Amino acid sequence: MNENDVNLISYRPDIRVLDATVRDGGLVNNFAFTDDFVRSLYHANIAAGVDYMEFGYKASKTIFKREDFGPWKFCDEEDIRRIVGDNDSPLKIAVMADVGRTDYKTDILPKKDSVIDLVRVATYIHQIPTAIEMIEDAKEKGYEVSVNIMAVSKVNDEDLNNGLRLLGQSSADVIYLVDSFGAFYPEQIRRLADRYLEVAEKTGKKVGIHAHNNQQLAFANTIEVVQKASYFDATVCGMGRGAGNCFMESLLGFLKNPKYNLAPIMYFVEHHMLALKEECEKNGTVWGYDIPYLLTGIMNSHPSSAIKFLKENRTDYVKFANELLDNFQG
Amino acid sequence: MNENDVNLISYRPDIRVLDATVRDGGLVNNFAFTDDFVRSLYHANIAAGVDYMEFGYKASKTIFKREDFGPWKFCDEEDIRRIVGDNDSPLKIAVMADVGRTDYKTDILPKKDSVIDLVRVATYIHQIPTAIEMIEDAKEKGYEVSVNIMAVSKVNDEDLNNGLRLLGQSSADVIYLVDSFGAFYPEQIRRLADRYLEVAEKTGKKVGIHAHNNQQLAFANTIEVVQKASYFDATVCGMGRGAGNCFMESLLGFLKNPKYNLAPIMYFVEHHMLALKEECEKNGTVWGYDIPYLLTGIMNSHPSSAIKFLKENRTDYVKFANELLDNFQG
Repeated sequence: MNENDVNLISYRPDIRVLDATVRDGGLVNNFAFTDDFVRSLYHANIAAGVDYMEFGYKASKTIFKREDFGPWKFCDEEDIRRIVGDNDSPLKIAVMADVGRTDYKTDILPKKDSVIDLVRVATYIHQIPTAIEMIEDAKEKGYEVSVNIMAVSKVNDEDLNNGLRLLGQSSADVIYLVDSFGAFYPEQIRRLADRYLEVAEKTGKKVGIHAHNNQQLAFANTIEVVQKASYFDATVCGMGRGAGNCFMESLLGFLKNPKYNLAPIMYFVEHHMLALKEECEKNGTVWGYDIPYLLTGIMNSHPSSAIKFLKENRTDYVKFANELLDNFQG
Repeated sequence: MNENDVNLISYRPDIRVLDATVRDGGLVNNFAFTDDFVRSLYHANIAAGVDYMEFGYKASKTIFKREDFGPWKFCDEEDIRRIVGDNDSPLKIAVMADVGRTDYKTDILPKKDSVIDLVRVATYIHQIPTAIEMIEDAKEKGYEVSVNIMAVSKVNDEDLNNGLRLLGQSSADVIYLVDSFGAFYPEQIRRLADRYLEVAEKTGKKVGIHAHNNQQLAFANTIEVVQKASYFDATVCGMGRGAGNCFMESLLGFLKNPKYNLAPIMYFVEHHMLALKEECEKNGTVWGYDIPYLLTGIMNSHPSSAIKFLKENRTDYVKFANELLDNFQG
């Protein structure tokens, strides 16, 4: 299909959808998903035509204790295989590895020994040289590799240009535009995507987008770049840290590629997600748009203060806004 | 300020914000707001620098029984005055009148006898000749007048052009772009706003926007036209029929005019809206994004079926989607 023919009725066949529910949602409930939940989501994703399912992090066991988290903080090969076997399906398996918080050299196996397809390296701007080492390591081991530059709403233009140039020279297949703080408006996302795309096109890479819903703009920001990006992250019911992510239901409802099917995701919501959501609400581990997240989004701040505010059952929004201003560091 | 200087840091001083909480929210709870709630919202709006507060409908008492609704279905002069006195404030008072459901000739008083400032005529495309009679009646009585063309996502291009041309020749001050079914994506809203603006600019009128949140795009669609429209509707906590509206908190957090102040609205949420929301949830009269509204939005359908689905505590989304397809009439 000619790119110029892409409109709200047609589709781009090169678009890939990644389900990040267990990984980003794991930040809500400490990765305490039952195997039944993860397995049902795996089958729902296959039936829905989703392209990638992110199972969690490859976190360092020297930094994090196994007993403090569910298995998807670590994504050991045998844990993933307990769910997917040899993954005899078109759905690809992804894991995330944070720069500085992973023993990637030992914990990321050679591809021939793993059902994982895609290694997603997550880096802050000042860590990019280490990120590139991780990218090259994963590429040499045989994986598809993507890289997320986090908290980019805090990065100045010069640093971002330099970072993008370095990543353009790396072996990464995809460079992700990540709105960690839900701080961007669609017109900013559009301009940023153009900058990412310029680097990516020169070096044969693709651009991805991972949005947060602080200002209820995760879906809007995602579809804003539907003609620029190729990899689109979403989570079921928007489950993810703080305000959460772009809703998978919305994204699949928008995309026109016949291979996508919303019904299995809705079925999964009815039979698994509603119960998890209720349990999370009982435990005070909620996610989704709320005023405190709106405020951290507007102020381009990490959502941790808003998560704390809600966990303490506070509703004094005006005081919270003032506290944010006191700590405002642009 | 030069229009070309408008960006995410500057502002357009001619922008007007209208709080539609009691009117659109009244469709959720049958206008059963306490006087204390409405009075507190009135004072919050004044403190927040909001330009207009819509109190409700001017509904016909021959069609609707007084005892079936709260007072804001009818907005009698003495009811509004019980809240605002002579409205000694910069906040203007608005009411809505639906074509065919209002005794506007008798129930809309001459402006000199009323604290109302703005009469909002709501019309479907086939009712425009009657809408124009109502517009002229309100204008002759001395009011500011706006007109909402409802359900425009169901209207073909030819009819919309003809309707806009007629309204362009009327005495209305503002023509509102209304996404009744939450069916539009930002790029569609942008193109539609251009068509409205073309008519409005030729005839000295302004354009307004009233969005619904079925696809979590109400805020995104609203700010998409921030350089085109002049009147922006929002409601506190997005309260409104079905999926609700653009959140006032988001809109005020986005606009940069120093006269707007988010704090009084947040204070109002804490002290009044949270309790109302809890009460509504107990009564099963909820609002806000949910999968059934996403589906009616995607399918460009009236939200009534989704409201019914949720009222019946159903969660069989896949079946509901199929029911919508069965009844799909484009």
